[in-house]
Amino acid sequence: MDIFEESLEYHKKHRGKIAIASKVPLKTRHDLSLAYTPGVAAASKAIAENPQALWDLTSRGNWVAVVTDGSSVLGLGDIGPAAGLPVMEGKCVLFKEFAGIDAFPIALKTRSIDEFVRTVKEISLSFGAVNLEDIGAPRCFEIEERLKKELDIPVMHDDQHGTAVVVAAALTNALALTGRSFEDAKVLVHGAGAAGVAITKLLIAFGVKDIVVADRKGVIGSKRNDLPPMKKELLAMTNPNGINGTLADGMPGRNVFIGVSVGGVLTKDMVSLMEKDPIVFALANPVPEIMPEIARAGGAAIVATGRSDFPNQVNNVLAYPGIFRGALDAKAKKISEPMKHAAARALASYVKNPRPDSIISDVLDKGVARAVAEAVKAAT
Amino acid sequence: MDIFEESLEYHKKHRGKIAIASKVPLKTRHDLSLAYTPGVAAASKAIAENPQALWDLTSRGNWVAVVTDGSSVLGLGDIGPAAGLPVMEGKCVLFKEFAGIDAFPIALKTRSIDEFVRTVKEISLSFGAVNLEDIGAPRCFEIEERLKKELDIPVMHDDQHGTAVVVAAALTNALALTGRSFEDAKVLVHGAGAAGVAITKLLIAFGVKDIVVADRKGVIGSKRNDLPPMKKELLAMTNPNGINGTLADGMPGRNVFIGVSVGGVLTKDMVSLMEKDPIVFALANPVPEIMPEIARAGGAAIVATGRSDFPNQVNNVLAYPGIFRGALDAKAKKISEPMKHAAARALASYVKNPRPDSIISDVLDKGVARAVAEAVKAAT
Repeated sequence: MDIFEESLEYHKKHRGKIAIASKVPLKTRHDLSLAYTPGVAAASKAIAENPQALWDLTSRGNWVAVVTDGSSVLGLGDIGPAAGLPVMEGKCVLFKEFAGIDAFPIALKTRSIDEFVRTVKEISLSFGAVNLEDIGAPRCFEIEERLKKELDIPVMHDDQHGTAVVVAAALTNALALTGRSFEDAKVLVHGAGAAGVAITKLLIAFGVKDIVVADRKGVIGSKRNDLPPMKKELLAMTNPNGINGTLADGMPGRNVFIGVSVGGVLTKDMVSLMEKDPIVFALANPVPEIMPEIARAGGAAIVATGRSDFPNQVNNVLAYPGIFRGALDAKAKKISEPMKHAAARALASYVKNPRPDSIISDVLDKGVARAVAEAVKAAT
Repeated sequence: MDIFEESLEYHKKHRGKIAIASKVPLKTRHDLSLAYTPGVAAASKAIAENPQALWDLTSRGNWVAVVTDGSSVLGLGDIGPAAGLPVMEGKCVLFKEFAGIDAFPIALKTRSIDEFVRTVKEISLSFGAVNLEDIGAPRCFEIEERLKKELDIPVMHDDQHGTAVVVAAALTNALALTGRSFEDAKVLVHGAGAAGVAITKLLIAFGVKDIVVADRKGVIGSKRNDLPPMKKELLAMTNPNGINGTLADGMPGRNVFIGVSVGGVLTKDMVSLMEKDPIVFALANPVPEIMPEIARAGGAAIVATGRSDFPNQVNNVLAYPGIFRGALDAKAKKISEPMKHAAARALASYVKNPRPDSIISDVLDKGVARAVAEAVKAAT
């Protein structure tokens, strides 16, 4: 039985992965009077008089909504909200386990951005923060921007920023190990969706001057006449040397490759075109852009993937539990750029002795979220 | 410290009453692969291929949304959705404790019926049923009707039907103890809001022929020229003898009084006007329509209230956990009239030896919900 068959059986057996838990006893008449009528009226009245009391008298401050529309689920694509629900439940389990956060999965049926935004706002009183998840580009950008503007609680699209934070952390250590700084980096990002765009922006904020983005049609350069507004905007902040052509045309002289799109697109020969001792992050799942041993045969000094069966697993679970924990603890109204930067730096420095096969923490290390949370809280 | 001060402290100390719980372990890399990537993809794919698999592979089938707009919270009135949240959390705790149901509180900001209905439909994939709560009349009627029609999962407004079921059960035993049948009953219901309307309709379904409803302006009779459509409809099915006037004018010859409106409206003299050995349900909270000892001094044979410090506590918690448990277990698409009737009958017969001070079960009896659930499931 492979992991997929086993997981299917496991989901059937447990009938899903999440349940509610009461934080209070309910054995006596007195317990009932405290939790419900008549006592609860005192909590309701206190909130009616002072809306801020909602944070002290209900669980709101520890609840995160994990919201999807199922338009870009894992590597499976647009499979719809119902099919996205097991992934959202999984994320809720991880939030609880790694950061003590109570998360609830919401899979919206709509494909209207207005309706998505309106619904999340309507239900937001139950939540201290919103984690957007598995929403396709470019819809995800507008949904996140609007919710950030229109809600007074933290909102983060994890496929963008969680991924970017972990990549920036892993790259911090990989650059240091190969004797480079962010300013020395010559990056090629393959993938111009949610993750690719956020990674590009975060790396620029971290000091990268020379970064080129490619999508499935090749390098995003001046000769492309098929670029939608989002990619034109991306071009304006990238590709300083005016590279054009295929992905292979973009490789010569690069020292960092970051793939967040489709598996199998990178060959050994393409890696050989890069600067000596390049860094290759082949993060497509489940099939990486290039298998680690082939990348190394092509000359790569450091290789990371998204998979747990190779060293250097770049996985969002290293970032989002701590980011949301820190934001909730700080009672932050948003997750700002400095908070994300602090998360990436904390995650990088959490690795005490970086080595080529250990540039990022183990995903099961329960101390990571605490370290990230403290840094994020301090940066609020 | 009274119960209100104590409950306020308790809410502060616990910071609300609910948390998420994981149903699965998450200690090893293998656990992570089953709950989340890559294994979870198998569950998502299975649902994408067969939407019905959602019920087997996620927790949906055991989750109930407890939804309010805060327009009629407890006896506090229209205090808004935020102030309603502690009550919703309390209800979630009770659902879990009494019926093993995972319930999540949703407090909607809108006052538009369209927007309320649209939002609940949008988020409904996460839930196996919807419990509407603390929504004022007449909005509650339209919201419930529309959601029942437009969703394919059970929807019930508990302030209407939960209350009606418990009243019908308690009255079943009270009528028997006083040698009457539902056909012999001459009922006066005081209160024409959510509870009053639902009680009236359910008692008619149980065989009551002579039932009169009064609101704060007096008996709902032919001489009232201020009746909105809902109350005209109510009049059409009640008041067969054409009674008009004040509440007191409606009392002579009645043998059942059911108060679900404001406290203190009933006097000893008004009870004395009733048929010999009348039944008085003074259910207003926290102050009943008449205190039990005064009702008895006025001649009442059986008295019930909504309070835990008197015998015969009529409380919804006797009904809704079992009703929803039964509906979820049956995978019902709605909560039908026969299901509610079965719940009331099960609740009445759960009291093995009814006595005047014991016409309904103790609210803490954990066997009640199971008995109600079995009856509801069988009636699906």
